[in-house]
Amino acid sequence: MQLDQIFSPSVQHTLDVIGIFVFAISGALLAVRKNFDVFGMAVLAEVTALGGGLLRDLIIGAVPPAAFTDLGFFVTPLLATVVVFFLHPHVERIQAAVLVFDAAGLGLFCVTGTTKAYSHGLGLTASATLGLATAVGGGVLRDVLANEVPSLLRWDRDLYAVPAIVGATMVVLCIRFDALTSLTSGLAAATAFVLRLLAMKFHWRAPRAWNRRSTVTEE
Amino acid sequence: MQLDQIFSPSVQHTLDVIGIFVFAISGALLAVRKNFDVFGMAVLAEVTALGGGLLRDLIIGAVPPAAFTDLGFFVTPLLATVVVFFLHPHVERIQAAVLVFDAAGLGLFCVTGTTKAYSHGLGLTASATLGLATAVGGGVLRDVLANEVPSLLRWDRDLYAVPAIVGATMVVLCIRFDALTSLTSGLAAATAFVLRLLAMKFHWRAPRAWNRRSTVTEE
Amino acid sequence: MQLDQIFSPSVQHTLDVIGIFVFAISGALLAVRKNFDVFGMAVLAEVTALGGGLLRDLIIGAVPPAAFTDLGFFVTPLLATVVVFFLHPHVERIQAAVLVFDAAGLGLFCVTGTTKAYSHGLGLTASATLGLATAVGGGVLRDVLANEVPSLLRWDRDLYAVPAIVGATMVVLCIRFDALTSLTSGLAAATAFVLRLLAMKFHWRAPRAWNRRSTVTEE
Repeated sequence: MQLDQIFSPSVQHTLDVIGIFVFAISGALLAVRKNFDVFGMAVLAEVTALGGGLLRDLIIGAVPPAAFTDLGFFVTPLLATVVVFFLHPHVERIQAAVLVFDAAGLGLFCVTGTTKAYSHGLGLTASATLGLATAVGGGVLRDVLANEVPSLLRWDRDLYAVPAIVGATMVVLCIRFDALTSLTSGLAAATAFVLRLLAMKFHWRAPRAWNRRSTVTEE
Repeated sequence: MQLDQIFSPSVQHTLDVIGIFVFAISGALLAVRKNFDVFGMAVLAEVTALGGGLLRDLIIGAVPPAAFTDLGFFVTPLLATVVVFFLHPHVERIQAAVLVFDAAGLGLFCVTGTTKAYSHGLGLTASATLGLATAVGGGVLRDVLANEVPSLLRWDRDLYAVPAIVGATMVVLCIRFDALTSLTSGLAAATAFVLRLLAMKFHWRAPRAWNRRSTVTEE
Repeated sequence: MQLDQIFSPSVQHTLDVIGIFVFAISGALLAVRKNFDVFGMAVLAEVTALGGGLLRDLIIGAVPPAAFTDLGFFVTPLLATVVVFFLHPHVERIQAAVLVFDAAGLGLFCVTGTTKAYSHGLGLTASATLGLATAVGGGVLRDVLANEVPSLLRWDRDLYAVPAIVGATMVVLCIRFDALTSLTSGLAAATAFVLRLLAMKFHWRAPRAWNRRSTVTEE
């Protein structure tokens, strides 16, 4: 259980709230683009920000999930909704900045998700998988609710899962070799963060199956 | 736990079954419109009727969920499927009546969902949120399975979430001020019900973000 | 709990892994058709193979779910992803064979899902329902993530739910009459398997509601 406290509780909570806020911004922005009303914006903001952690908590049996026990976690996406509601053209304009924060959220959530899963008794592989699910699950739920193909799965989007996989893997390796400290955790989060920034800058993409094949025609 | 029994158990159960039936009708009707077969109708009826409560029960840790322990809850959507299967043109014709019943289900479920969540130890805000989720969750799952944009999120639909939010908020205020009785619960359900009817009659809608802005062009 | 062991544990595990593998193949193939990258293939393979059992385990309260405690269950879909990644034109060519294996997975999962739910204390109807959910849930999640109408619900697809319903019903009848052995379980799985093969061969389909009506026009 101490694993949950590799950062001091207040630092951890502040980081979580920041991650929740930036994910919520991305949800509210998609709602604006999809022509949803203000309640649709709030729903999408909440789901994007809290969905990954909710999924993780249900799977590890940590009920009620943190999303429903921490008032700050619940209110933060509503604040993000208000910001986007009144300022969305400005938020759109600083889209690049939003993506940087989103990358920060990705790095942070893959680390805290992995740590929380492990502290609830899951194995190393399962913990890393749940770290990944924590980081990307909210975005997938957001896209499913908005009736879009999840951008996580699309080949024409810059790498998103890989940075989170790397971060989560670093955490379980640290756990395995008894080297998980706030320093190494921070390093794992920073690695995922930087990898995601590089993926956006250089448009890194993952291969599709058929690029490997030659003559098969698929439209 | 007594909170669950603000209505007498048999009255409560009858109200639940009525709510389940009308939600199931809406699911089966959408299945007909989407050209699904009879099994698709049954699946959509079950998911619409029981999905919101299932989600709530998973989150508050009430497993197995009521949907799987109460045979009446399971059979009712199948009855609704049979009704729609044989009578769907008639059911379509009385669509207005169906919507009235759906509004009744909305009012009822937001109250019972909030109460059940609170009786399982959640806070007031979380309880109201889960009351809302109970009331609207089934409809969202229905639309996701049918590959439609959830009507809950669309700006061009009459207010649906707001009546449920008002009803759930009334319940938690009653709990807060120690005034939750079958009378006040009924009042909260009735308020949500009437608000939804008014929203349909006068086509109340929630604002979209960009109505607030002027010169930004979005297609 | 012994109900879980109607097959010897190692036989049971081998059958589970085979079922997981063939479901994963179907997920990875859909990912290829949807133009997803290799990570999208892996996600869809995992979700298709493990989603039904995950849903069942969350509902019966068996957390953490088997999908996260058995490393073999997790790795198998990754192997299927590798196979499809390098060999997908070949896999497409043997699509008929894949469908046969998928039918085998369907038969197996409806039996083991029903048995596991019953051994966790659910009633007969609920157990059969969860057996069905185990067998078809992964495919529904796969289609939802791929932003397609679930093929389970479409009338223009050969019967898929009915064979699983028959298999699950046979299992609960055996439980009811105290006749559940590895033989009768195998028989139930085989029945579902053969029914699905026949449904594919003869293009059995379920009726849609409006075929029953005459003059109503629906586009």
